[in-house]
Amino acid sequence: MNIAILFGGSSYEHEISIVSAITMKKVLKKSTLTYIFVSPNREFYLVDTDKINAKLFSSGAYKKGKQLTLKQGGFFTESMFGSKPVDFDGVLNLIHGRDGEDGKIAALMEFFNIPFISPRMEASALSYNKLYTKFLAQSLGVKTVPYEHLSKTDERKVSMEYPVIIKPVRLGSSIGVSIVKEASELEYALDVAFEFDTDVIVEPFIEGVKEYNQAGCYTNEWELSIVEEPQKEAFLDFEKKYMDFSRDSQVLAADIDDDLKIKIQDNFKKVYHPLFKGSIIRCDFFVNNGDVLLNEINPIPGSMANYLFDDFEGMVERLFKNLPKEQNITVDYQYIHSIQSAKGKA
Amino acid sequence: MNIAILFGGSSYEHEISIVSAITMKKVLKKSTLTYIFVSPNREFYLVDTDKINAKLFSSGAYKKGKQLTLKQGGFFTESMFGSKPVDFDGVLNLIHGRDGEDGKIAALMEFFNIPFISPRMEASALSYNKLYTKFLAQSLGVKTVPYEHLSKTDERKVSMEYPVIIKPVRLGSSIGVSIVKEASELEYALDVAFEFDTDVIVEPFIEGVKEYNQAGCYTNEWELSIVEEPQKEAFLDFEKKYMDFSRDSQVLAADIDDDLKIKIQDNFKKVYHPLFKGSIIRCDFFVNNGDVLLNEINPIPGSMANYLFDDFEGMVERLFKNLPKEQNITVDYQYIHSIQSAKGKA
Repeated sequence: MNIAILFGGSSYEHEISIVSAITMKKVLKKSTLTYIFVSPNREFYLVDTDKINAKLFSSGAYKKGKQLTLKQGGFFTESMFGSKPVDFDGVLNLIHGRDGEDGKIAALMEFFNIPFISPRMEASALSYNKLYTKFLAQSLGVKTVPYEHLSKTDERKVSMEYPVIIKPVRLGSSIGVSIVKEASELEYALDVAFEFDTDVIVEPFIEGVKEYNQAGCYTNEWELSIVEEPQKEAFLDFEKKYMDFSRDSQVLAADIDDDLKIKIQDNFKKVYHPLFKGSIIRCDFFVNNGDVLLNEINPIPGSMANYLFDDFEGMVERLFKNLPKEQNITVDYQYIHSIQSAKGKA
Repeated sequence: MNIAILFGGSSYEHEISIVSAITMKKVLKKSTLTYIFVSPNREFYLVDTDKINAKLFSSGAYKKGKQLTLKQGGFFTESMFGSKPVDFDGVLNLIHGRDGEDGKIAALMEFFNIPFISPRMEASALSYNKLYTKFLAQSLGVKTVPYEHLSKTDERKVSMEYPVIIKPVRLGSSIGVSIVKEASELEYALDVAFEFDTDVIVEPFIEGVKEYNQAGCYTNEWELSIVEEPQKEAFLDFEKKYMDFSRDSQVLAADIDDDLKIKIQDNFKKVYHPLFKGSIIRCDFFVNNGDVLLNEINPIPGSMANYLFDDFEGMVERLFKNLPKEQNITVDYQYIHSIQSAKGKA
């Protein structure tokens, strides 16, 4: 099939989206790929699949390509001879961070009636915001790490014991995140976090906590990845994550017993269904004293977590065939008609 | 100023949006109005302000008008001679229900960098869904009516005492809402609600509960409406609400003491700030045993609740001058540059 890779965007993760997008060439080998770049000022450009490389974007050379317009049913090239649709079967949303993960791209695709793989708008708005993710988990009976919420204008006070981890509620890829070992470090960490966001959550930093990642989707059945135990570091800084987003080779499954694996998978399914239908997401869990705690939902994981799946390309095709359908609303103007006949105007 | 009224949309409330939009002619008298209609299949049409009336839409005659394209910075007419922007200072989002209240229009306006009055995407996603509104209220310390949540696939069981009220979580204007007086009526009410949505909330139906509406916004200061006690009926059916949406004359303030008024206003402010900046919303409260309980947030109230304000038009202008700014993100490609120089490719 012909898959349009939508990438870039007005996001702190614009560059890692480019890395994710280029990685797709190595993992979607049987498909035809059509690359559509969203520039930092949010214009759409068609990018030649044969010539795609990171420098094309950093140099600005992409601007020489065809600019596209978004209209009902697709992306179009405009010329003196009229409007011509760009040919593809569906869009894979690979924009990390703002635009892609916050729900804007989902809203655009839904509004303009373009089939797409990505969390829908509502799922995006909830998972993009770490505070709202807590609400969601609570409503689903999924445990999370305990937390406190601080707004920019709140008193800068934390009740839980140090060390804590401070996270802006709306950003991915560890941007603005700090580990705070003692009270004296709090001010600076909050200054950094509030540079990026109006709200932060504070969580206990659990030394040596076990972390496991589970990715997957629902096509016409559950397609779950292996459970991965990510590399151990305090946390990944931006540059390390950046390199991480270009991964394309399979990793080994975590060495865990079946009980824990089933617990992790059950929690993934609870989070996913039905809100995340149509998307491939990765959930990051902590395991503490036998409890499986949802740490984060990655609505558009780096390079779509392809390296965790046996048959990533087949799964993408199956998902495109099983996208959720928007409810059809017929507008028949019956109220206007009935009011007009009451007024004698019909 | 020149205000673009965006109305219509793919929504069960398409027709009442038309009524709201036409009402704006009577209440925004000093402004120039530019009408942009979103057809049921989501195409944009410029509508002549002098000729606007309900029949233009029910007859399909609007299709003879100019079709518009949404691009960076605005709406454009396209012709052989190129692309021409439609002239206006900002958009007033008047699309009720899906598209307008769920966050799609907000996403489109943010993405294409068009100033607009409406809740932003995140605020829309939370307030459009009555279950998420409960979570939001809880996080803000705002009390709500107690509730139970049922998904389409859940066992059809209600724990609270009858009578109860059943509401689809995602629709406005009482669509799919039923009052259930006893257990035997539950099945049918749920059948109706699940016609419209995958999820419902069940709340106690409190006979004779006092209801008060508070509308407002934050410009460079709080601009709160009078508190209204809406007309008493079990609940408004669709046709009555429809007529209600064309209101343009001031109503009398509810006869309540200052204590209660301040409580209602404080709750409104808690809900509004900072999530709803840039919008004019109406919050509907119940007062039960002295408690002020948030019943619903109306992110785009009928005819913008103009009839509750002394100086609606002035407020709209002041709000346009005080819209929230999106955070500016500069993409400088420093990571791509540094990686390329590490590889010797720069």
